[in-house]
Amino acid sequence: MDKKELLYEGKAKRVYTTADEQLLIVAYKDEATAFNGVKKGTISGKGIVNNRLSNHLMKMLETKGIPTHFVEELSDRETVVKKVTIVPLEVIVRNIAAGSLSKRLGLPEGTIMKKTVLEYSYKDDALGDPMINDYHIAALELATQEELEQIASYAFRINDVLRTYLKDAQIELVDFKIEFGRTADGTIILADEISPDTCRFWDTVSNEKLDKDRFRRDLGNVEEAYQEVMSRLFGLN
Amino acid sequence: MDKKELLYEGKAKRVYTTADEQLLIVAYKDEATAFNGVKKGTISGKGIVNNRLSNHLMKMLETKGIPTHFVEELSDRETVVKKVTIVPLEVIVRNIAAGSLSKRLGLPEGTIMKKTVLEYSYKDDALGDPMINDYHIAALELATQEELEQIASYAFRINDVLRTYLKDAQIELVDFKIEFGRTADGTIILADEISPDTCRFWDTVSNEKLDKDRFRRDLGNVEEAYQEVMSRLFGLN
Repeated sequence: MDKKELLYEGKAKRVYTTADEQLLIVAYKDEATAFNGVKKGTISGKGIVNNRLSNHLMKMLETKGIPTHFVEELSDRETVVKKVTIVPLEVIVRNIAAGSLSKRLGLPEGTIMKKTVLEYSYKDDALGDPMINDYHIAALELATQEELEQIASYAFRINDVLRTYLKDAQIELVDFKIEFGRTADGTIILADEISPDTCRFWDTVSNEKLDKDRFRRDLGNVEEAYQEVMSRLFGLN
Repeated sequence: MDKKELLYEGKAKRVYTTADEQLLIVAYKDEATAFNGVKKGTISGKGIVNNRLSNHLMKMLETKGIPTHFVEELSDRETVVKKVTIVPLEVIVRNIAAGSLSKRLGLPEGTIMKKTVLEYSYKDDALGDPMINDYHIAALELATQEELEQIASYAFRINDVLRTYLKDAQIELVDFKIEFGRTADGTIILADEISPDTCRFWDTVSNEKLDKDRFRRDLGNVEEAYQEVMSRLFGLN
């Protein structure tokens, strides 16, 4: 399968059309951005880690009943995925307070949430991806009530599956952001990626951060952290 | 009934204990603040309008099956209310985009919402009353699931009743903020106030603002707007 036209270039990925109208090719870049594009940089090898890791996790999620856009890994950086219309929501699941949740609620980073928190952000760079709720989503017609219930259900299920899976690799799933899309027939499936760019991963013993916060906060050993997550997960089963 | 000790002084009200442990006296001030206390001023006669108007509307809501903290109006500025523990949520209902919702979603002020929007803010001045959702409320244990369902149900019912009532006075209910409290036996009732400080009221014909936005935005005729709302509503029925 070959790339045809560049359809879209995002902060961390390029997306290409293919000869098959239902399929796209995603190519992962090493470029990293943070704080809505204000901070920019490169994390050498990130594209390879994110591509392989995201595919690995999506394949695993498929076996647990979560439909995803994954079709076939073409190379270290390129993957064939199902074409979807992205639901313009960042779906965020939080087990432990960190980042914007810590700031918003005044909770020290590391506070274990008494209940799992699900949040939605409206994917709109100009507005800064503002947090919204079910009523805003209904009023803006971003998703139907039925779609939103499906998305929430998948999000909690993905959290349960990933947490258990990552625990075996001594990784704590602090929080993560996922995105969903609609296929041509309107089915909701998991899209985008699952990687250290989109999750907070903490070492369960040392609490060391193994994710993009190392880049956001200039903690050093950024590349090493991405590699560490990959080798831990590919060392499993 | 007499005031005993000053229990609490807020931005717009003082609250006093009474000889009856279950009852408090609220005294309305003319002081006005906006933008989380950054802007300060005085709106002459505001305390009288808000006291009388809030009591008037709460009495009306009681007849429609909404339990409130209202007990007895003592004077132009003072009212006896039931003592409650305030649920630390600002419950916001929006029919038309204005203020923070316009900014958050990039909607021009005046956009009619396709569905009524319900929002919660966590009442915490130090955090700037951040918007939160049902999951944050559960995780922070600010209210039980049952209480939150009751609050949401009352909020939509209050919106329906108030909108219809205000239409007869040529007032459009753009949005409003209410607060609920728990009585000694755990019953959820409407507390705080309903006034031009806590609602956006627009003249249905001219769209002229008849609320605190005249103060927030230095639109002039602030006192006149508060008086206008009161005379329109007391001119009814």
